[in-house]
Amino acid sequence: MYFGSDNQTGASFKVMEMLAQANSEYTHGYGDDHWTYQAIDNLKTLFECDLDVFFVATGTAANSLALSCLAQPWEAILCHSSAHIIVDESTAPEFFTGGSRMLPLAAGEGKMTPTHLQNYFKNAGSDYPHNVSARALSVTQISESGLVYSTKEIGELSRIAKQQGLSIHMDGARFANAIASLGCTPAEMTWKAGVDVLCLGATKCGALSLEAVVFFNKHLSKDFTQRRKRSGHLLSKGRLFGAQMVGWLKDSHWLDLATHANQQAKKLSDALMAIDQIELAWPVQANELFVTMPKDLATHLQSAGAEFYEWSENTLPETIKLANGQTYVRLVTSFSTQDSQCELFIENITDYFENQAR
Amino acid sequence: MYFGSDNQTGASFKVMEMLAQANSEYTHGYGDDHWTYQAIDNLKTLFECDLDVFFVATGTAANSLALSCLAQPWEAILCHSSAHIIVDESTAPEFFTGGSRMLPLAAGEGKMTPTHLQNYFKNAGSDYPHNVSARALSVTQISESGLVYSTKEIGELSRIAKQQGLSIHMDGARFANAIASLGCTPAEMTWKAGVDVLCLGATKCGALSLEAVVFFNKHLSKDFTQRRKRSGHLLSKGRLFGAQMVGWLKDSHWLDLATHANQQAKKLSDALMAIDQIELAWPVQANELFVTMPKDLATHLQSAGAEFYEWSENTLPETIKLANGQTYVRLVTSFSTQDSQCELFIENITDYFENQAR
Amino acid sequence: MYFGSDNQTGASFKVMEMLAQANSEYTHGYGDDHWTYQAIDNLKTLFECDLDVFFVATGTAANSLALSCLAQPWEAILCHSSAHIIVDESTAPEFFTGGSRMLPLAAGEGKMTPTHLQNYFKNAGSDYPHNVSARALSVTQISESGLVYSTKEIGELSRIAKQQGLSIHMDGARFANAIASLGCTPAEMTWKAGVDVLCLGATKCGALSLEAVVFFNKHLSKDFTQRRKRSGHLLSKGRLFGAQMVGWLKDSHWLDLATHANQQAKKLSDALMAIDQIELAWPVQANELFVTMPKDLATHLQSAGAEFYEWSENTLPETIKLANGQTYVRLVTSFSTQDSQCELFIENITDYFENQAR
Amino acid sequence: MYFGSDNQTGASFKVMEMLAQANSEYTHGYGDDHWTYQAIDNLKTLFECDLDVFFVATGTAANSLALSCLAQPWEAILCHSSAHIIVDESTAPEFFTGGSRMLPLAAGEGKMTPTHLQNYFKNAGSDYPHNVSARALSVTQISESGLVYSTKEIGELSRIAKQQGLSIHMDGARFANAIASLGCTPAEMTWKAGVDVLCLGATKCGALSLEAVVFFNKHLSKDFTQRRKRSGHLLSKGRLFGAQMVGWLKDSHWLDLATHANQQAKKLSDALMAIDQIELAWPVQANELFVTMPKDLATHLQSAGAEFYEWSENTLPETIKLANGQTYVRLVTSFSTQDSQCELFIENITDYFENQAR
Repeated sequence: MYFGSDNQTGASFKVMEMLAQANSEYTHGYGDDHWTYQAIDNLKTLFECDLDVFFVATGTAANSLALSCLAQPWEAILCHSSAHIIVDESTAPEFFTGGSRMLPLAAGEGKMTPTHLQNYFKNAGSDYPHNVSARALSVTQISESGLVYSTKEIGELSRIAKQQGLSIHMDGARFANAIASLGCTPAEMTWKAGVDVLCLGATKCGALSLEAVVFFNKHLSKDFTQRRKRSGHLLSKGRLFGAQMVGWLKDSHWLDLATHANQQAKKLSDALMAIDQIELAWPVQANELFVTMPKDLATHLQSAGAEFYEWSENTLPETIKLANGQTYVRLVTSFSTQDSQCELFIENITDYFENQAR
Repeated sequence: MYFGSDNQTGASFKVMEMLAQANSEYTHGYGDDHWTYQAIDNLKTLFECDLDVFFVATGTAANSLALSCLAQPWEAILCHSSAHIIVDESTAPEFFTGGSRMLPLAAGEGKMTPTHLQNYFKNAGSDYPHNVSARALSVTQISESGLVYSTKEIGELSRIAKQQGLSIHMDGARFANAIASLGCTPAEMTWKAGVDVLCLGATKCGALSLEAVVFFNKHLSKDFTQRRKRSGHLLSKGRLFGAQMVGWLKDSHWLDLATHANQQAKKLSDALMAIDQIELAWPVQANELFVTMPKDLATHLQSAGAEFYEWSENTLPETIKLANGQTYVRLVTSFSTQDSQCELFIENITDYFENQAR
Repeated sequence: MYFGSDNQTGASFKVMEMLAQANSEYTHGYGDDHWTYQAIDNLKTLFECDLDVFFVATGTAANSLALSCLAQPWEAILCHSSAHIIVDESTAPEFFTGGSRMLPLAAGEGKMTPTHLQNYFKNAGSDYPHNVSARALSVTQISESGLVYSTKEIGELSRIAKQQGLSIHMDGARFANAIASLGCTPAEMTWKAGVDVLCLGATKCGALSLEAVVFFNKHLSKDFTQRRKRSGHLLSKGRLFGAQMVGWLKDSHWLDLATHANQQAKKLSDALMAIDQIELAWPVQANELFVTMPKDLATHLQSAGAEFYEWSENTLPETIKLANGQTYVRLVTSFSTQDSQCELFIENITDYFENQAR
Repeated sequence: MYFGSDNQTGASFKVMEMLAQANSEYTHGYGDDHWTYQAIDNLKTLFECDLDVFFVATGTAANSLALSCLAQPWEAILCHSSAHIIVDESTAPEFFTGGSRMLPLAAGEGKMTPTHLQNYFKNAGSDYPHNVSARALSVTQISESGLVYSTKEIGELSRIAKQQGLSIHMDGARFANAIASLGCTPAEMTWKAGVDVLCLGATKCGALSLEAVVFFNKHLSKDFTQRRKRSGHLLSKGRLFGAQMVGWLKDSHWLDLATHANQQAKKLSDALMAIDQIELAWPVQANELFVTMPKDLATHLQSAGAEFYEWSENTLPETIKLANGQTYVRLVTSFSTQDSQCELFIENITDYFENQAR
């Protein structure tokens, strides 16, 4: 019952297979190899446009390197107050940008809305160089609460931000799950909606360690190779990334993996919604469930071997307050989540309530 | 009618006199001179304790250098959401600390309270190294809304913060005005209330360019000389600072200057409170007035030569909303504000309303 | 004929096998998994001591993160003027340290000697905070010219540097080759000789992407987890590193791989030394050959499919000057270099000279 | 007998007078005042061109801020190996640039020559992003050994550097002395010879604390106001700088001051050259003397109250080696050096040798 995170499983079989194949060759180092070139070509095809793309090992590196191309050290970056980049990546954005300011918006809500942006711009001081000027907007797809921004929503946020001179970053750690959820094309979710740079995460959805920083706005990428090198993120054996990406993209493997993860989340949420004392805090739109439940139940499940994290109450919708004895947890499904795991999880819950009832 | 800021006037006569005297000598460079040593001794006497003190030219340098001694690049600094360090000093704190995170609290309130701190600590994640850990608290005395923290209030904030392992920084750009307002000793307002490092501003209260970074907690100052030098803040002709400070402290000159500024603010506020369409947003406790007034009046005053700034509505108390046609302005008095300036200002207002009434 | 670099081949079969095995499991993320713990234990056994160890993906990350634990931003790091950290890692050391100064020594010599260090300390200014103080010494094993520092040499450099308060870093990108060459224990080459932190490279000798930062002096590692996270070098699927390391260390696999590489270098150098117009610039002590040869020959070899790099004349011994028409090249053997590659290379050379002679 | 440095005296009377005059006014803050504007205009007149200029308090701040506009964090800055920016300003250049590499040239020589630059470019690696690329050249006028670069020499260095894409920075801490020495115009010594940005020091030649960063290439200054603010170098009472500069420039006061300093150096050197056991290491071309003398004499002079510094043997010309019992000292004259000081100094030397002879 591994619902802790979609990073608690390995790579998919097909990804590993491609890696094994790439391993046996001689190639040049530092990404000058045919696996890397193939991966880049495949991404251009996937996104239906020319683009610059760079591979790194972690989401934190991808996000921070991307942001460092968007904002100067004396500028600011707007993001949701629960965004991974501001909550879970230490001060990596400050490190890579040379000290840009991180500005949180939309506390307590599932997604950032045009109103959040408009209020920010209305109130922000413009007495430069004293005040700090926002220069980048980061949107997390799927959102911090497991919600999926529609392409229209992304387009509106982009439009407002761009009117103010900002560039648009998308943290796509679960981009594949968002595509699987909406059924739109990768192009529609990104550059067609105004996204300048996407951090496309494969690690959480079938790769072992693979994040692609995809620049649709190629003007912004000009220093990337320098930034990647000096932060130690240029791998000598670049095939490690190239081969994973080739395997991940081949025959829409990535989409199959994401679709499976989303389906398992749907099954789990259907079953949970049928249970009285369990409530979904947010609608389940991809592969994450945010759930309130009795604390004792959570403890019971963990004793039974279930993996999941208690989540910060901060991120509950404003309409929900935790009752005494309740807790708030996050459940994540992945490409490798099997029906049997979900069934066992539900069984354990049923058992618990039956025992309670006695 | 100069109410724009207490930095729009020069130095007091006595400060300039001391500077002129120091100018004529030969001394060693870089603060190895008797003016600097005298200034340091005088500060020890003033604060009734041993301390480490360093002089720099600006409040931004003082604050950021001080903060860089308190927090590591992967740690955070708590401050009021309207604090000068987060609103008006660009990303200087990030620059000097090497990328610490700035965390704003207490939006829309005149002072930070224990509740703000407690809520922060209750909700802050502690999953290190992913989450960011707060390591310093910055308190602005007088506050961002012109209010004075009592020594008891400072003590309580310090106590809560220190229980969590934070060090305490006081931005004392208007420290002298706070002392003049409360009548307590400098020691009571700082180390006796838990303050580890004070940025004591003289520039706004009688000096030309002089800020003292005063470490009561001498463990925290060990890298200061290195940090000051490599940020270009070590003056070769150190007497510039030393002499100003000697002149500023001599015979309680600093307190006389601050007392005068506060008194002028009191006179002005008394007169303004008598006028129907003008409202004080916050009580006047030192040398700053925050006032709502008709926009047309503000324009009229500025045409008549009055200097002041419109202020951000963000910083109004939650109970006050600007009506249509109104504006929110800040008025600052200084050691050099003369009765005639205040009287002329009030006269202009009276004239305006009389003309209106016709 | 791949002699370009030991990073132009993949991972050894045994390392890949272990990775495949680790891939199929569920584990916690971020290095909280049994593969990582096993790898750490195995390194303690290998080095015969307690230690702190952290895994990262690249040598640049390993070196820079390690150095950032040794020197403050206002201090300096001494290294050989041809060291990888100063020549081939962009300004990564400055980035990670927050701006420490890199100071090159020993230009034109194969190794750093006690005299280089002594001269540096004799001449270095000590007027702080104006002058910069050296706080770390970095030694590259095997050296920039393919030479191996004896344990005695390392001990002497350490001793002199430590007397001046420096910490000792070893860049062990080819540490395994050095051990295979000297036949000493890993402990003798490191902490017993005064090394505080070793960057142990596995990537060049059998892994796909694996560098271990090994702290023998555990006082120095206290911020490492914070530094690794905020630089984006903490992998979510930590097993990628853990499993490679377990496979690499098992049954002295690492030493077998290094021994093979060294043996192939020896064979190649024996054959080359028999050829008149080819000269070894430095003795071959591990798996790198530095060779002067006719430019036309180099071109001929490259046309025939041989991979190698022309090398900077700067790094020639002072006694050797390139004649007109000559070039200076580096040849590197690896764990996967086969006899047939070496033989083909020599054959091509022989053919060239035979054709020349006609 | 103050020959320690030209920063051991105060400001000239005329500069102080102008400061006193400016002190009594009300003005806007942060350089938005007529003194600052007047100073800027006067500099445009002096340099016979349009330019951007910014005032700061220290030479370290001026140099580092200027350099941060020329080189990216992954690029390098070339300078003389004894340059103030690399020897005496801690790691300020790294701090302000965000970690650019400092590269020293021309060790042991009095000036940098075209050959030094050409050799550097010939040998520098260009395998980017691995290698570091030089992007700025810093020239110190007057040089580290008290020599004056001719306008032709500056032009040649600029030309070679610009061919390689570098920008040219001039550290003009003693620029006035250089002008007084050569008799050329400020324009000829700077933009007409290819200089992009000049750090014009007034502090050492009559001001109290005043350095002007003068951009002839206005494209390079676009971020300067942001950089100055976030490093804490934007003064609130900007008149402090503006007034000093107005006073310093008025009626060629600056040139009179520099001319006096140079003349005193000439007198002193003429007298010293007549003494057998004292040797000038470098010709005296401005206001600095570098002299070898018996250690006992140096001690005797210091006991008699003479101020000067022993200097690093590193910076001796290669042709001069210190004999046993000798030392190497620097003597600096200033605008305030009086004949009587020089005479007393020579007298003390004569006395010493007479006593020796007995």
